[in-house]
Amino acid sequence: MSEGQGNPRKPTIRTVAELAGVSLKTVSRVINNEPSVLASTRARVLQAIADLDYEPDPSARNLRSASAYVIGLVYDNPNPYHIIGIQNGVLSACRETGFGLQIHPCDATSPLLAEELAELVQRSRLAGLVLTAPMSERVDLLQALAARGIRTTRIIAAAEDPGEGPPCVFVDDRDAAYEITEHLVQLGHQRIGFLWGGEDHRSSTERYLGYEQALKDYGITLDKHLVIPGDYTFDDGFRGARRLLALREPPTAIFGSNDEIAAGVLAAAKSAGMNVPYDLSIAGFEDSPFSRQSWPALTTAKQATEDIARHAARMLIAGLRHDGEGAAAVPNHGFVPQLVVRGSTAPVRPRAQAQGDTA
Amino acid sequence: MSEGQGNPRKPTIRTVAELAGVSLKTVSRVINNEPSVLASTRARVLQAIADLDYEPDPSARNLRSASAYVIGLVYDNPNPYHIIGIQNGVLSACRETGFGLQIHPCDATSPLLAEELAELVQRSRLAGLVLTAPMSERVDLLQALAARGIRTTRIIAAAEDPGEGPPCVFVDDRDAAYEITEHLVQLGHQRIGFLWGGEDHRSSTERYLGYEQALKDYGITLDKHLVIPGDYTFDDGFRGARRLLALREPPTAIFGSNDEIAAGVLAAAKSAGMNVPYDLSIAGFEDSPFSRQSWPALTTAKQATEDIARHAARMLIAGLRHDGEGAAAVPNHGFVPQLVVRGSTAPVRPRAQAQGDTA
Repeated sequence: MSEGQGNPRKPTIRTVAELAGVSLKTVSRVINNEPSVLASTRARVLQAIADLDYEPDPSARNLRSASAYVIGLVYDNPNPYHIIGIQNGVLSACRETGFGLQIHPCDATSPLLAEELAELVQRSRLAGLVLTAPMSERVDLLQALAARGIRTTRIIAAAEDPGEGPPCVFVDDRDAAYEITEHLVQLGHQRIGFLWGGEDHRSSTERYLGYEQALKDYGITLDKHLVIPGDYTFDDGFRGARRLLALREPPTAIFGSNDEIAAGVLAAAKSAGMNVPYDLSIAGFEDSPFSRQSWPALTTAKQATEDIARHAARMLIAGLRHDGEGAAAVPNHGFVPQLVVRGSTAPVRPRAQAQGDTA
Repeated sequence: MSEGQGNPRKPTIRTVAELAGVSLKTVSRVINNEPSVLASTRARVLQAIADLDYEPDPSARNLRSASAYVIGLVYDNPNPYHIIGIQNGVLSACRETGFGLQIHPCDATSPLLAEELAELVQRSRLAGLVLTAPMSERVDLLQALAARGIRTTRIIAAAEDPGEGPPCVFVDDRDAAYEITEHLVQLGHQRIGFLWGGEDHRSSTERYLGYEQALKDYGITLDKHLVIPGDYTFDDGFRGARRLLALREPPTAIFGSNDEIAAGVLAAAKSAGMNVPYDLSIAGFEDSPFSRQSWPALTTAKQATEDIARHAARMLIAGLRHDGEGAAAVPNHGFVPQLVVRGSTAPVRPRAQAQGDTA
C-alpha cells in the first residue's frame, strides 16, 4: 500500500522472463502457480525471481495471484491446544516471510481427500501445504498429491528420517513414551495402564511401542487388560480410566497417550474420590497448557509443537523459493519430546498396590 | 478437478458481462476484487454472477483470483479454546459456501493495523474480513478499513444493536455477567471478587458492568479491593486470586471474567490447600472445554462461540453475494450467553464467612 513512484531500476516481469529465458506468459503461469509448466522451467523462473528479488508492482498485480504468498495447513485433530500450537508455529514462519496462512480441517479417512486438497490448492492458489498427522502418514494421499504437482511438507511420528516421500519433520514419540514409562516404573509402578489415541495416528502407535519396550526392558509382563483403545479426546480418557479403575486388579498408574486423554483420566480419578497422585499416578503427552494448569499439574512429554510446526513451514517456504524440482531445500529434521515431571506422578503406595492385588 | 467436457449451456464471463451490461474487463476486475470498480457496478456484476450461478471454467481460471473465495479471520486473543471455537464457527460457514479461510493473528494495539490489514486483503485477495474483539471495537480501525473498501463483519460485546458501523454480531455479556453474580449472591456470598480480562476488550467492561449492577440491585456495597485488573489469561487469574486470598478480608467467591482466568483462580485456590467450592466458590465465563474438564467443573456463562462466529461469517459471505453497496444482506444479530451452574460454586459456609469477617 505504501509504494510510491516506481523505481526505474526495479525488476519487471520482462527482466524475469529475460533472465530465465522464457516468455512473459510462462512467467505469469509460474506466478499464478498453473500446473502447465515443466518443473525445470518453473525452477528457472523461480530462481530468476529470487535472484532479482522481483515483486510485481501494483499496476501488474492482476498478473499475480495469491498463490506465491499463501500456504495451507491441513489438519484433522480433536485437540484444540495441539491445533493452536501447530497454527502458531506455522504462522510464525509465515510472518518471517510475508506468507499468508489458509487453514483446512478435513476428514482424514475421506477417500476423496486428494481431490479435495487439489481443489483447495487450485481454488485458493496455495503455494503448498503443511500436512499434519494422520494425513501426513497416508502414503496413497502423498502419492496422489505429488502426482498433481502439489508441494507439501509433513509432520510425522517416526524415530528416524523416513528417507523417502515429501520433506518432513519427524518426531520421535517412541523414545519419549519410553522415558515416561521408565519414570513410572522407577517410581515403583508395575501395573501401568495405557490409553491409545486413535490407531490412524502413527504417533499413538509409536507411543504404545515406547511403553511396550520400556515394560519389556524392565522385565514387566504386559497385561493386555491394561491397554485400552480410544481417540485423542478427554471423553475417551475418562471412559478408558473408568474401565481401568473398575478392573479386579486396577493399575496404580495410567499413561494417557496425550494430555487431553490424561485430563479425562484425572477427572475420572477425582470423580471416584481418588487422591492424585497418591492413589493413582497419571502421565500425559504433549505439554499442553492444560497439563500445566490442572491440579495437580501433569507429568508429560514436552513436544515443542510450535517449533516443530515452524520448522515444517520453513521447509515448505524455503523449498518454494529455492527449488522448483520438488526436492527439499532444507533437510528433514527430527525432534525428540522431553520428559517433564510434575505433580501427577508419585511413588506407588504399598497399600494401594496391596489393595490392587487383593481386590 | 473433476470437470469433464464443457457444458455448452454453462454461463461464461461473456454471459455475465451481457446480463450486467458491462465490459468483460469490468467483470474480470470484480472477480479479481480490484478497487477500481464503482460499488453500484460491482453490485450489478455480483448479482449477475449469482443469478447465472457462474463459475469460471478451468481455461479461464487465470482471470480469476482467489479473492471471491477466501475470507480472513483477524484475532488477537491469548485464549486457545476461544480462538479454536471462533475458527470452527467461521470454517463451518466457509464449508457451507465453498469459501476458504485465511487466519491472521495481529497486535490489536498496533497503530499501523489498518495498513497491515489492507495489505493482507490485497496480497491474499481476500473477499472480506471477520473481525473479533478488540479490533472489532476500534472505531478508527473500522473507519480506515471502510474507507479502503474492505468489507468486514464484526463480533462485539454489546447489550444492544449498535445501529451503526459495519455489520455485526453482538453478544450481551453484561446480562450474562449479571446472572453469574446473582447466582453467587443467592448462594449467600457477599464478598465476591472480580478479575478483569483486559480493558481493551469491551467484553470485559461489559462483564464488569453486569457484576457491578447485580451487586447494586442486591444492596451489596462494592469493595474496590475485590476488583483486580489483568488480562484474559490463566496467569493473571492465578496472580489475581493470590492477591484476593491474601486480603485481610478475602472474598468467599471469585468471578473470573473468562474461563482461563477462572482456571488460574482454581489453581491458586488448590495450591493454597483450599477445598473448592466449600472454601471458595469460583465462576468463569465462556463454557470452554476446560470449564467442563476441570475438577470441579466450572460454573460459567455458555457463550456459543461457534454459533456466534458462524453467524458473523455467514453475514459476511451473504453480503458479498447479494450486495455490492456495503449494506448488510442479513440484519445484525444478538446472542445472550446462558448461566451454566456446575460444581465450582456452592453456598457460602458460615464458618468461612465468619473467618473472612474476623481475619
